[in-house]
Amino acid sequence: MSDQGRPVPPPPGPHFSRRVPDGDTLERYVCGRCGHIHYTNPKIVVGSVVAHEDRILLCRRAIEPRKGLWTLPAGFLEEHETPEDGARREAREEACADIRLDALLAVYTVAHISQVQLMYRASLAVPNFAAGPESLDVQLFAWNEIPWDELAFPSVKWALRHYRETRHLSVFAPFGNPAPRNSPAP
Amino acid sequence: MSDQGRPVPPPPGPHFSRRVPDGDTLERYVCGRCGHIHYTNPKIVVGSVVAHEDRILLCRRAIEPRKGLWTLPAGFLEEHETPEDGARREAREEACADIRLDALLAVYTVAHISQVQLMYRASLAVPNFAAGPESLDVQLFAWNEIPWDELAFPSVKWALRHYRETRHLSVFAPFGNPAPRNSPAP
Repeated sequence: MSDQGRPVPPPPGPHFSRRVPDGDTLERYVCGRCGHIHYTNPKIVVGSVVAHEDRILLCRRAIEPRKGLWTLPAGFLEEHETPEDGARREAREEACADIRLDALLAVYTVAHISQVQLMYRASLAVPNFAAGPESLDVQLFAWNEIPWDELAFPSVKWALRHYRETRHLSVFAPFGNPAPRNSPAP
Repeated sequence: MSDQGRPVPPPPGPHFSRRVPDGDTLERYVCGRCGHIHYTNPKIVVGSVVAHEDRILLCRRAIEPRKGLWTLPAGFLEEHETPEDGARREAREEACADIRLDALLAVYTVAHISQVQLMYRASLAVPNFAAGPESLDVQLFAWNEIPWDELAFPSVKWALRHYRETRHLSVFAPFGNPAPRNSPAP
């Protein structure tokens, strides 16, 4: 097993080597001295599509990657944090916004970087926002004003489109990754 | 910040100490030699409530923790894996079962151990199953036969109850953690 040809992270220490531990089925880093297994795990990103009076909040990134492009308030879930708390924290940090979560909009997987993204549908709790330290600018956009060609990540576009599909729904199942464009019709 | 008084994992190496990196708000392990920041992240568990003809599949754990108690097929998501693929893999590994996922049943957070659990509603694709290496036994249980007092984890009970609530629903929003028993009525 070689993690399906995906990039393998650097070893956690000088005595670690890659092998399949007894009783396992995948290669892990195992310490040649003490047998300690160093597991690596997918990371959780939490974020939200935040609406206010039919407009949607976007943040212009002040940091790499994709500095200068527009994104949703989102980031890595912290230890001991619920995804909902994490999504609210990211909106506070990146957009100085106090938001109310309404529904789990989508669960996306970005498999090549081992990310699972939990995206919520939300609204501004109070109509205030501003650029946090990781944002150059924060603005509300009407649907036809969204800078589609300046969005930072594919999943930002997915979440905006999925948000649009649920605008008039109170109960729905969360979306997953959209099918690739050139896949055959189901 | 001290991670809200939660347990802090051991340092990743001898030169690491806990401090708040510049521009951050939480304590991390930072290498005193090179400044490398060692982030730790919540882990994702994926699993499923698998039904077959009104009965539910449970696995008796062959491994600690909770050896000998009954659980749902579930486990840690692997790198580069989608949650759906992970849930199917766990059913294969623990119950030798080929399952069909139907809906995202719940997103639970076990904050004190930094776990986010994605639990799916599923059914047996073919009516075959057997104990995998991590299970002592695998059985189908009618609702009134479920060994409620021998379930391995609280979230197993949550998922079973939430599954029961969705039996006749094709579209629903995933559940979260149930409210604590002694919390005031909403």
